[in-house]
Amino acid sequence: MDQITLQSPFDMHLHLRDGEILQNIAQHTAKSFSYALIMPNLNPPILDTKSALAYQQRILQATQGGDFTPIMSLYLNENLGLDDLQEAKDNGIFILKLYPKGATTGSENGVSEILSDKILEILEIAQNLGMILSIHGETNGFVLDREVEFHSIFEYLAKNFPKLKIIFEHLSDRRSIPLVEKYDNLFATLTLHHILLSLDDVIGGMLNPHYFCKPILKTKKDQESLLQTALQAHQKFSFGSDSAPHLKSNKESQKGSAGIFSAPILLQALTQTFEAHNALENLESFISINASKIYGLTRTSKQITLTKKPFQVPQEYAGIVPMFAGQTLQWSLA
Amino acid sequence: MDQITLQSPFDMHLHLRDGEILQNIAQHTAKSFSYALIMPNLNPPILDTKSALAYQQRILQATQGGDFTPIMSLYLNENLGLDDLQEAKDNGIFILKLYPKGATTGSENGVSEILSDKILEILEIAQNLGMILSIHGETNGFVLDREVEFHSIFEYLAKNFPKLKIIFEHLSDRRSIPLVEKYDNLFATLTLHHILLSLDDVIGGMLNPHYFCKPILKTKKDQESLLQTALQAHQKFSFGSDSAPHLKSNKESQKGSAGIFSAPILLQALTQTFEAHNALENLESFISINASKIYGLTRTSKQITLTKKPFQVPQEYAGIVPMFAGQTLQWSLA
Repeated sequence: MDQITLQSPFDMHLHLRDGEILQNIAQHTAKSFSYALIMPNLNPPILDTKSALAYQQRILQATQGGDFTPIMSLYLNENLGLDDLQEAKDNGIFILKLYPKGATTGSENGVSEILSDKILEILEIAQNLGMILSIHGETNGFVLDREVEFHSIFEYLAKNFPKLKIIFEHLSDRRSIPLVEKYDNLFATLTLHHILLSLDDVIGGMLNPHYFCKPILKTKKDQESLLQTALQAHQKFSFGSDSAPHLKSNKESQKGSAGIFSAPILLQALTQTFEAHNALENLESFISINASKIYGLTRTSKQITLTKKPFQVPQEYAGIVPMFAGQTLQWSLA
Repeated sequence: MDQITLQSPFDMHLHLRDGEILQNIAQHTAKSFSYALIMPNLNPPILDTKSALAYQQRILQATQGGDFTPIMSLYLNENLGLDDLQEAKDNGIFILKLYPKGATTGSENGVSEILSDKILEILEIAQNLGMILSIHGETNGFVLDREVEFHSIFEYLAKNFPKLKIIFEHLSDRRSIPLVEKYDNLFATLTLHHILLSLDDVIGGMLNPHYFCKPILKTKKDQESLLQTALQAHQKFSFGSDSAPHLKSNKESQKGSAGIFSAPILLQALTQTFEAHNALENLESFISINASKIYGLTRTSKQITLTKKPFQVPQEYAGIVPMFAGQTLQWSLA
């Protein structure tokens, strides 16, 4: 097969930043996806509808003509009340993102006590309004155990808010897969990097700061389990890249930032991966159909065509080193 | 106690490099230690007695007046024969260092097949000459399992060369401790960083390239077990810092070098650690007496006095970021 056409790809977890970086990178997502779910962890974070809509406008300006819709989310915080969530819902914002305080980039304003009365009250409102709760699920324990240590919180929330859809974001540990399968209202996103890379790619040879991310890449067994989950287009999992641009100078630093910039290479690398495993027939489910069912999104008529010709990934895009920099992928955007 | 005097500290695993770096850093070790075992992984490596003696002279020039003796080692390679080892022995070089190919900095010339006839023949000669075999014990498997995967090689060598003293260098995984205890001819070195730091210090928060090293720092449980082993001055373990200077620009890079530069802060941090755990009475065993027994070294009369006054670790020494940069230790060299 020399060409493949994908209808309405969705990226259900994306960092676009703001200002100059937004201007420089938003086009890469707009070129490949119909919708993307935009993370609210700017500095300061997107705490209310007004800020979210203003941010959405800046994104649309940066991607003009791209036939691309940014789905906005609110940064879950204790100041949210019924009126705020109703206002969000009325403006098409139906996703709340929960960051445990300190878990990753831009989580300084995150929630320090997730099961507090105030937060549970907000989740009750969110459930009643039919909103979706996305969670960066990590404790502040030992780096390789953080995700599993967070399972009990997912279980508590899934049991106590049975009508609230909860998304286990960027699932990275194979022990988390059965948990997602256990609860009807629990779903997950998978990134490209967690299905293709392991901790060896960060610290196994020379140190590669450009593959340093949170949740940290895990073992090869974890990577393989996640890859198989994606390849079979498991219905509880949708694609969310967690593409997270940081300037090269902030990655190659005494205090390197966490995040992998994958936006420009996502569909090419996914197509190559699914083809290599004879699973191309599942690709559209993984990157579009699953998300449309989980999030209740209508797929658009946007079609992305990829051609089987070599694509040499640039070393940098506007000062940001992408995933697979300098490597050659077998598929290109047409 | 406001002062402590340590007699004849030994650093049984040290990288001094060559040229400008050697000139800039050798003084830090000469100030604190009577002897240090110098690693031969220069580029090109120290493959014969002549190179080792020339290197020793360069080290002595860089540390003149320091009352300091560098103990030299040879890089184990297939070209060594009886005459070579006899010549080494006659010139006071009694340590062979085995690097598995590709395991760490400067291991490009390492041994690709450790249990080959040729290598076993060399080890037989080394055993007969009463030499010591130091090993960087890691496979090329998954980064966190490499040391344990190498256990079978240690076991094979310990069993088949019962009169050859074998050193398990920079032991980093708690599962390796019982192995060292199991064989009479197996010993180990412990670094400062493996007894005080864990993988969380590298990738748990922001990325810290200056704590990236091989063997990689392990879990907190590993760190705690190693620390307890050091604090009790376990007789099969001696101190070897594995201090390994790399320029800041090579650490904070797209391909960061492995190694932690600890030479200027070793005795201060060890004293602080042993004091904090009420184990000061074991410190001299850990840093001097154990090594003198294991390696058959005569302790010198050199005395190092430390005073309990704050020592703020510089951010850099000649372009190299040290361990605990910017932090304050409670003990200073007098």
